[in-house]
Amino acid sequence: MATTLKGRDVIAIGGLTKDEIELVLAQAARFEERCQEARELDLLPGRVLATLFYEPSTRTRLSFETAMHRLGGDVISVAEGARSSSVAKGETLADATRVVSSYADVIVQRHPAVGSAQEAASGATVPVINGGDGVGEHPTQALLDLYTIERERGTLNGLRIGLVGDLKHGRTVHSLSRALSHWKPVLTFVSPPALAMPAEISEELRKQEVTVNETDDLAAAMRQCDVLYVTRIQKERFADPAEYDRLKGSYILDRALVERTNPELTIMHPLPRVNEIAADVDSLAGAAYFRQAANGVWTRMAILALVLGEQL
Amino acid sequence: MATTLKGRDVIAIGGLTKDEIELVLAQAARFEERCQEARELDLLPGRVLATLFYEPSTRTRLSFETAMHRLGGDVISVAEGARSSSVAKGETLADATRVVSSYADVIVQRHPAVGSAQEAASGATVPVINGGDGVGEHPTQALLDLYTIERERGTLNGLRIGLVGDLKHGRTVHSLSRALSHWKPVLTFVSPPALAMPAEISEELRKQEVTVNETDDLAAAMRQCDVLYVTRIQKERFADPAEYDRLKGSYILDRALVERTNPELTIMHPLPRVNEIAADVDSLAGAAYFRQAANGVWTRMAILALVLGEQL
Amino acid sequence: MATTLKGRDVIAIGGLTKDEIELVLAQAARFEERCQEARELDLLPGRVLATLFYEPSTRTRLSFETAMHRLGGDVISVAEGARSSSVAKGETLADATRVVSSYADVIVQRHPAVGSAQEAASGATVPVINGGDGVGEHPTQALLDLYTIERERGTLNGLRIGLVGDLKHGRTVHSLSRALSHWKPVLTFVSPPALAMPAEISEELRKQEVTVNETDDLAAAMRQCDVLYVTRIQKERFADPAEYDRLKGSYILDRALVERTNPELTIMHPLPRVNEIAADVDSLAGAAYFRQAANGVWTRMAILALVLGEQL
Repeated sequence: MATTLKGRDVIAIGGLTKDEIELVLAQAARFEERCQEARELDLLPGRVLATLFYEPSTRTRLSFETAMHRLGGDVISVAEGARSSSVAKGETLADATRVVSSYADVIVQRHPAVGSAQEAASGATVPVINGGDGVGEHPTQALLDLYTIERERGTLNGLRIGLVGDLKHGRTVHSLSRALSHWKPVLTFVSPPALAMPAEISEELRKQEVTVNETDDLAAAMRQCDVLYVTRIQKERFADPAEYDRLKGSYILDRALVERTNPELTIMHPLPRVNEIAADVDSLAGAAYFRQAANGVWTRMAILALVLGEQL
Repeated sequence: MATTLKGRDVIAIGGLTKDEIELVLAQAARFEERCQEARELDLLPGRVLATLFYEPSTRTRLSFETAMHRLGGDVISVAEGARSSSVAKGETLADATRVVSSYADVIVQRHPAVGSAQEAASGATVPVINGGDGVGEHPTQALLDLYTIERERGTLNGLRIGLVGDLKHGRTVHSLSRALSHWKPVLTFVSPPALAMPAEISEELRKQEVTVNETDDLAAAMRQCDVLYVTRIQKERFADPAEYDRLKGSYILDRALVERTNPELTIMHPLPRVNEIAADVDSLAGAAYFRQAANGVWTRMAILALVLGEQL
Repeated sequence: MATTLKGRDVIAIGGLTKDEIELVLAQAARFEERCQEARELDLLPGRVLATLFYEPSTRTRLSFETAMHRLGGDVISVAEGARSSSVAKGETLADATRVVSSYADVIVQRHPAVGSAQEAASGATVPVINGGDGVGEHPTQALLDLYTIERERGTLNGLRIGLVGDLKHGRTVHSLSRALSHWKPVLTFVSPPALAMPAEISEELRKQEVTVNETDDLAAAMRQCDVLYVTRIQKERFADPAEYDRLKGSYILDRALVERTNPELTIMHPLPRVNEIAADVDSLAGAAYFRQAANGVWTRMAILALVLGEQL
C-alpha cells in the first residue's frame, strides 16, 4: 500500500516511519517549488485549521497559519494562551479538542505539559498535530530541520552533524538526533559536561548504528562536521551562575571562528537566537538558519495537506 | 411580508418572534445539509465579520469565525479582552462599534456588562449580534439549543424538558426557557432550593401556557423528561461551602443513572462541563452535548447570512 | 520614471515625496469608489499580510486587516503584545522581522519604541509599514488624515487648518503638520502654553512657506479655520493637576460652540475620543471623524497594494 498520512495525528517524530518522513520531505519540496510559480495553491478550499496555543509560540503559529493560507484554507485561532480558554474553567483537553473538532478540519495544539498533545488527540475527531508539548515533542520542528539539512547538503545520508548547546534539556536536539538515526549520521555532541546529552539517548542512537562522539571543544567539532546545529545555553540551567559565565563564551559562534575552522559548514539554529551566533555570521553562505525558518512553511504545508488526504 | 432578519441586530432571544426563530432554525438545517456536500458556501464573499470579545469565550468566538469562513467571508477579531482595546482608553462602546462598522459588515460582541450589546448596537451602522453580555443575554446560545432539541427529537412541540443546575443565576436556562415557551413545553426545573428558578420567570412562563414543575429530585425528573439540559453548579454560589459539598453529588449524571431512569433521554449541556456529566455518559446515543456544540456553527451561519440579507 | 512605491518600506511620512503621497491618495480614492461596486477586489490573492503589534492598537490593526481582506489577501497576526513574542525571549526586532519575511509578503509593525520600525525594516526582506513607533511616526495615520481633508474640502491646497490639544507630545499633529506643508496651508496651533507645538517644528514649517499662528483661544481659531483637528489633552501631561482642571474645559468642542463660531467647520479627530468632542457634535454635517476612521481602510488598501506593486 502507498504510504499515506491521511487522517493521522502527528504527535511525535518517533511515530513516523522513515517512509512517512520521506513522504513529508518530498511533498515539502514540491510545495516549495510550486509556490515559486503560484502564490496560493487551491488545495484546501473551505478547510479550516484551528491553532490552539495554550502557550505562545509566534513562529510555530504563524508558519502553520501561513501554510494553511497558502494552501487556500482558512484559520481560526486561540493565540492568547490559557488564560482565556475554556480549559482554564476546568474543561479537559480532550473535551476542548472534541468541540473544536466540530469547527475545524485539522488542529495544531501547543501546550506546556508533556503528553498534552496525546490527550488532546484522544478527544479529537479530526487530525491533531503537536505544535510542541513542553519538554516533550515538537515533530514539525524535527521535520523542518531534516528538510533543511537535505536542502542544504543535497542528501541526508551519512552526514557528519554536530549539535551544540544545552543537550540535556533540549527537546529539539533530542528529537532531531533520533529522527536522523534513519540516515546513519556521525553525530558529535558539543556541550559543557553538566548539559551533556542524556546517556540513554546516546545509547539508543548507538544501537541504531549511529556513530556518536561527545566533546566540549566546539572548534574541533566544527572542523569535523558538515552541519552544525546550534542551540542556546540558558543561564537558569546552571546551579552556579559563575559556572555559566565561565562557559558561555565557549559556545558562541562568530564569523572568525567559522572561517578559521570550516568555511563550508552549514549552520542551523531553531531560532530565536540571542547571542549564541554573532550577527556577522549571517552573511556567510552556510548560514542556513533563516532559510530553515522559511522551510517551516513548506514542511507544514506538506503535513497539513497530507493529514487531510491531499498531496501534490 | 415574508419574514426577514436583514439589517437586524440580534440582542436578545426575546427580540425574535416565533416566525423569526423558525426561519433561523430552517436556515440552519439547510446550512448543515449543504455543508455535507460542499466545504465552503460562496454566500458572503468579500464580507467581513468583526468579533469583538471584551471577555474571552473561545467556543462562541471560534464557532462564529468558523461560520463566517464556511460562508466564504473574512474575519477580523479582537480576542484578547479589554486590556488592549480603545475602550480601555475611555472610548464608549457606541463609538468603538461605530468605528468598527466602517471596517466590518457585521459585528459579534461579547462583553461582561449587562446591556453592553444594546449600547454597542446604538453606535453601529451594521448589524450587531450579542455574543453574551454578562448575566444578560446570549441569544445564539438559545438558538443553537432550540436547533439541537429539534434535531434530536424531531420537533419542538410539546416536549417534556428538564433543566438542571444553578437555575437562579444561569443566563442560559433563563433564555432557553423563555424561548421554548412558543412551543408549549412541560418544563421541569431541578435545583437545590437556594438555586431555584426565579419566581418571576416561572410566573411569566405559566402565563404563556407552559406547564412548570419544580423538584430537587433529579432521578424523578429524568424519568419524566424527553430532554435534560444540564448546567453547572458553581461552588462560589453557596454562602456555606458545606452546603455545596452536601448537594453537589445530587446533580451529577453518570451512565448508570441514565440507564436506570431513562435510556432514551436526550442529554444537553452548554459546555464546558467540569464534572456534572461523567465521561461514561458520552458514548450513550442520547448524549447530545457535542452535537449541540457542532450545531453552533450551522445556527451561526444562519444568523450571519440572514442579518446580511442572504439565505439558502 | 513613473512614481512607484513597489518594494518600499513606509517608515515615516517625511520619507514620502509629494508625488508619492498624491499617488497614495489617488489610489485610495479609486479603492473607495471600487468598493462601492464590488465587496472584494481580487488584487492580492495568495498574498499574506503580517500584523505584528507589540503594543495594542485595535483601530490600526483592524483597519489594516480589513484592507488586506478587501484586497483578496490573507492575514497572520500577533495581536497580543510583547508578552508572547520571541522578542520577549531576547530576539532582536531585525531577526524577528526577517523570519516573518519568509511567511508574509508585507509586514505592519506597531511597537512602543521610537526607531523600532526602522530596526524591523533593517532585517526584513519584504516591505515594512510602520503602524506607529511610540512617540515617533505613524505615517498611515497622516495619510488617512490628508485623504480625509481632501475628501471633505475638495482640495488640500491652501487650507486654513487648526490643530487643537496637546501639540507638544502629539505624534499625530507633528506628522500631519509636516505632511501638510506640501500644500502651503495656514496652520493655527491651539493649546495651553505648556503643551505648545515645539518651536523647532514651527520653525521648520515656516521655512517651507507655511503660515503658522499660535493661540490659546479655541473659539477664535474656529472662526478662522476650514478644518479643525482635535486631539486629547491627557491629565498625566501636567505637573500640576489643578492646572489641568483649570484648562481642560477650554479645549472641549460642543455643538453650541461649533454653531456659534463656524457651522461650516470640518471637524476631525484621530479617535478614540474621551470627552474632548461632545456627542451632540456627531450629527453635524462637518463632523468628519467617523468618516476619517473609515478612510483608514481605503488609504491602507492603497499602501498595501502599492508596496506590493499593484494598483488600480
